[in-house]
Amino acid sequence: MPLAITRRRRIYHLLEVAHENDYASKFVDILLIILIVLNVIAVVIETLPSLQGRYEQTFLIFDYFSAIIFAIEYGFRVWVCVEDTSFRRGLTDKRARLKYILSPMAIIDLVAFLPSLLQIVVDADLRFLRILRLLRMFKLTRYSASMEMVLNVVRKEKNAFLAAFFVLMVLMVIAASGMYHVEHEVQPEAFASIPHAMWWAMVTLTTVGYGDVAPITAVGKIFGGFIIIGGVGLVALPAGIMASAFAEEMRIRRQSLNFNIDTALEDGIIDEDEMRELKVRAIELGVNEHEMDELIKLAVDARVKTSEQPKCPHCGEKLA
Amino acid sequence: MPLAITRRRRIYHLLEVAHENDYASKFVDILLIILIVLNVIAVVIETLPSLQGRYEQTFLIFDYFSAIIFAIEYGFRVWVCVEDTSFRRGLTDKRARLKYILSPMAIIDLVAFLPSLLQIVVDADLRFLRILRLLRMFKLTRYSASMEMVLNVVRKEKNAFLAAFFVLMVLMVIAASGMYHVEHEVQPEAFASIPHAMWWAMVTLTTVGYGDVAPITAVGKIFGGFIIIGGVGLVALPAGIMASAFAEEMRIRRQSLNFNIDTALEDGIIDEDEMRELKVRAIELGVNEHEMDELIKLAVDARVKTSEQPKCPHCGEKLA
Amino acid sequence: MPLAITRRRRIYHLLEVAHENDYASKFVDILLIILIVLNVIAVVIETLPSLQGRYEQTFLIFDYFSAIIFAIEYGFRVWVCVEDTSFRRGLTDKRARLKYILSPMAIIDLVAFLPSLLQIVVDADLRFLRILRLLRMFKLTRYSASMEMVLNVVRKEKNAFLAAFFVLMVLMVIAASGMYHVEHEVQPEAFASIPHAMWWAMVTLTTVGYGDVAPITAVGKIFGGFIIIGGVGLVALPAGIMASAFAEEMRIRRQSLNFNIDTALEDGIIDEDEMRELKVRAIELGVNEHEMDELIKLAVDARVKTSEQPKCPHCGEKLA
Amino acid sequence: MPLAITRRRRIYHLLEVAHENDYASKFVDILLIILIVLNVIAVVIETLPSLQGRYEQTFLIFDYFSAIIFAIEYGFRVWVCVEDTSFRRGLTDKRARLKYILSPMAIIDLVAFLPSLLQIVVDADLRFLRILRLLRMFKLTRYSASMEMVLNVVRKEKNAFLAAFFVLMVLMVIAASGMYHVEHEVQPEAFASIPHAMWWAMVTLTTVGYGDVAPITAVGKIFGGFIIIGGVGLVALPAGIMASAFAEEMRIRRQSLNFNIDTALEDGIIDEDEMRELKVRAIELGVNEHEMDELIKLAVDARVKTSEQPKCPHCGEKLA
Repeated sequence: MPLAITRRRRIYHLLEVAHENDYASKFVDILLIILIVLNVIAVVIETLPSLQGRYEQTFLIFDYFSAIIFAIEYGFRVWVCVEDTSFRRGLTDKRARLKYILSPMAIIDLVAFLPSLLQIVVDADLRFLRILRLLRMFKLTRYSASMEMVLNVVRKEKNAFLAAFFVLMVLMVIAASGMYHVEHEVQPEAFASIPHAMWWAMVTLTTVGYGDVAPITAVGKIFGGFIIIGGVGLVALPAGIMASAFAEEMRIRRQSLNFNIDTALEDGIIDEDEMRELKVRAIELGVNEHEMDELIKLAVDARVKTSEQPKCPHCGEKLA
Repeated sequence: MPLAITRRRRIYHLLEVAHENDYASKFVDILLIILIVLNVIAVVIETLPSLQGRYEQTFLIFDYFSAIIFAIEYGFRVWVCVEDTSFRRGLTDKRARLKYILSPMAIIDLVAFLPSLLQIVVDADLRFLRILRLLRMFKLTRYSASMEMVLNVVRKEKNAFLAAFFVLMVLMVIAASGMYHVEHEVQPEAFASIPHAMWWAMVTLTTVGYGDVAPITAVGKIFGGFIIIGGVGLVALPAGIMASAFAEEMRIRRQSLNFNIDTALEDGIIDEDEMRELKVRAIELGVNEHEMDELIKLAVDARVKTSEQPKCPHCGEKLA
Repeated sequence: MPLAITRRRRIYHLLEVAHENDYASKFVDILLIILIVLNVIAVVIETLPSLQGRYEQTFLIFDYFSAIIFAIEYGFRVWVCVEDTSFRRGLTDKRARLKYILSPMAIIDLVAFLPSLLQIVVDADLRFLRILRLLRMFKLTRYSASMEMVLNVVRKEKNAFLAAFFVLMVLMVIAASGMYHVEHEVQPEAFASIPHAMWWAMVTLTTVGYGDVAPITAVGKIFGGFIIIGGVGLVALPAGIMASAFAEEMRIRRQSLNFNIDTALEDGIIDEDEMRELKVRAIELGVNEHEMDELIKLAVDARVKTSEQPKCPHCGEKLA
Repeated sequence: MPLAITRRRRIYHLLEVAHENDYASKFVDILLIILIVLNVIAVVIETLPSLQGRYEQTFLIFDYFSAIIFAIEYGFRVWVCVEDTSFRRGLTDKRARLKYILSPMAIIDLVAFLPSLLQIVVDADLRFLRILRLLRMFKLTRYSASMEMVLNVVRKEKNAFLAAFFVLMVLMVIAASGMYHVEHEVQPEAFASIPHAMWWAMVTLTTVGYGDVAPITAVGKIFGGFIIIGGVGLVALPAGIMASAFAEEMRIRRQSLNFNIDTALEDGIIDEDEMRELKVRAIELGVNEHEMDELIKLAVDARVKTSEQPKCPHCGEKLA
């Protein structure tokens, strides 16, 4: 059925993030983004006391409507996922679809509309599952390249973040245990036990500092002071990891783009075709246009300089 | 009218940020900076109860006076903008001026004095527009090169910041929804709805932690603990982006300066003229003098070392 | 006794962090990790008022049991430490064991189980030593490579952190002295003396901001404002040091891995054996697989490009 | 008087930060450090109500004693400053001493002991000048190389920090003006005027968040939310600047050390003399020993590789 395949490919492109000139695909993207945002807003504002009584029915209908749309989208995505060759990697249609269904994004999609859909069919009270509608929010990550880069950086450094989390846990247990022993007698409620003291430790070590619990004895304040300093060091950990990871990510991407620029420059100039390719590559890599211009300028400068220098001043011959 | 053109150019230079030796231009700059700062101070202190009654007239007259000065400045800037060749880029006088009038800085300038000026002419009560006088503050950005660099860095990474903002929004909705369900019954006022709970989520995720709202149940504190940890990670995001962007910006600027140093060093020494040029370039690039000295030293060292090794492979003589 | 030596080596490997395929060693690791975590949880929750009366006996028995296990582990570690050639460095068995016993990790291990063990034997009340059981937590650092890297970074930059700590102390003394003189009269309790004011200074400079103490006079708020700004700069210090140190650590590790990749690439391709070695090296260096793939790709690209250009200046033939 | 000159040089070395083996100089350093620390502690704890009455006399005598010691130290420093050739730069003794007396460190030294000294001689009540004794604290900066590096980094980036401060000011004026208009009616005390509202703006934008003032209206909380997000971005600014500056400082220092390593390696090996020199240089540059070892290893590796490669595979001749 070559016709069906063509249609499948068309729907695949409609659902995927749109290319420059595919306006129909852009239109679908925007519709879905609006629907997702409206859903999140609905979940949030339907708890407002002033709206709760009056518009309950409206919110319910909107939810049913959205769930049906998302179910259709889900069905289409399962159907067309086989068009993505880099995802498929030579699997049969059936296996590729199974692989897609079991991917985290697809599971989130499913869980985000299923309870609402079930509510239409089944009579049971599934209201406690309604909070799962918030998962629809994560569908938005599909549409932002920068978002992907941020998540990528976090994922790459997940070991370092786990280590930072472990340091936080250790410091928290020490802080809570110490403060429990010091302040337990004076503030028997706030520091009733080490788990109780952990609330103070957590709020302090992260520099949030609500002030609902705080040491009042002199010893408690001195011990608290050391913990607070530890907290500043602790907050610096993820910032340091993130900064280093971002810089590294950008370095690799720039190096990759630089290689492309050098290749394009091999014949001495960058013609229009090469420029267009470089721009696509730059967008892929999240390097903005202004930065790319600077990189090209530096590469040209370096090239000019290299091509001028290497002559032997004695015999005049060019140096290899 | 060659005379008028000369005068126009003179006014252009007077209004522009002053060069080293143009004392008249420096004088105009300083007068304008003082006037802007006085305006901001006036807007701020005229709300002081102790001043409000007594000096109302004085503040009003000062505002009228300032508005007229800024209007004159605005008029001059529109007139002389055609002198800036890099801005003009071959446009006719009329089109260049239109381009200038529609630039963000010019619009801010206009909106910052127009209401006060109207107030003089028109009789209507335009007091609610008086807050726009604060926009005069942004006129100061013209006079700081570092400020420009900071804004530049932020602008370049705006996609990453938007992604960080999106992560904040997602975390905030999750935090507010979760805490609403947990604490709603116990604190029906502070957590009256998810939008109400968002105030807590915002104050917590950014580690501000006023303490006006905080979870009091055990489940709320445990859930709050996870959100707080998420907040620390979140605060690390912009710090990481900023650090990476600053480092990158400085790297590109240094590389650019290094290229200039190498060019100046091609004949073996940096003479006084070259040094002066390098200094101007370093100021343009925001590289301080001390750092430039270090870069020059390293370049000279590298040159000395290179000059010791290489011999022409054709005639065997040392290369200069 | 070659048999005993073999058994000693086996126990050494069981206690060490497991290699890929040594499932028995992995099993021992996991058992010990679980025991440590359970111990920390026990220390924390045994203070809960609801558990304190009823399960005291259970907690005590669990503590005795754990102490005995940790004592046995300690004994084994002392016995087998001589198997670690890089630790031993040609020392006699006796001296190597003494060196091990005096290492910080071994002392922590000892102090963490000794009081509990003594409690079994001796009748005296050693309950005030029970807080030392929290030291068992640090035994976990053995099992995380990322944790080691984080500690490594902190250790390398300990001078910079000490300097940051010194800046904090100086600012704190200035803040506390100034605020004491300004607010002493109005808030004679909160600012009873400079040491009292230091609690406010500490909580403010680290941006924790409980709000239990805050300036209330106009002068106090203005002075406090400057101190708060100083605090933001201060919090930036450790973040900056950490970010720079992380980036540097990663750079050195990547450079080291790059050197290995270049060596492996010398014959033009990376065969399976070389790939396996590179992977082991990457894990050692904490570089993740995805990043290694990128480094390899860049090295291959660079190689291809280099191999296109250079020709021998003597015979004119292309260089491989 | 060659003898006097010798003695002057000796005192110069005693006062300067000690070299490795100059134990007398180390002894003087430590005595002075202890005296400074005791002075700071005295200033702080003499305000404790429990000590104020009883030990007033003791504190006074200790202050007189310290002031005399610091005066003698100051006199010696003025006398021997001419021994520092890099400071002197060919000036006459008199001019060099004048230059020293007018240097910021010398002025701080003078102001820190003069009031106490005057108190001994003059009868007037100079107690309000006693806070100047805290300046003695800054004498400690002389003894820490890392401290110097931290201050150096801050100084180099002072323009960027000023720009960040300017952004803070702008945001603060906007936040205070906006919140004043929104909350003025509901909280007429906390938001009595824009300057009053600035306390809230300052505490919020820096994420300190005491909670003594906070918006209570819905509009105020929404506007406050945007300001809080701005605050997170703002706090990221100095962290980003600091991180980038630290990384840059370390890069320049390492590059400088690398150059020394390459020079030492020119003959193929690093002998003991060269190693000692490198170590001194590394300490000067604040690069720790472990890092230097890694740099040397990388340099040797690179050298080995370079020396192996460059032979033409066709004609066998070495490539220049």
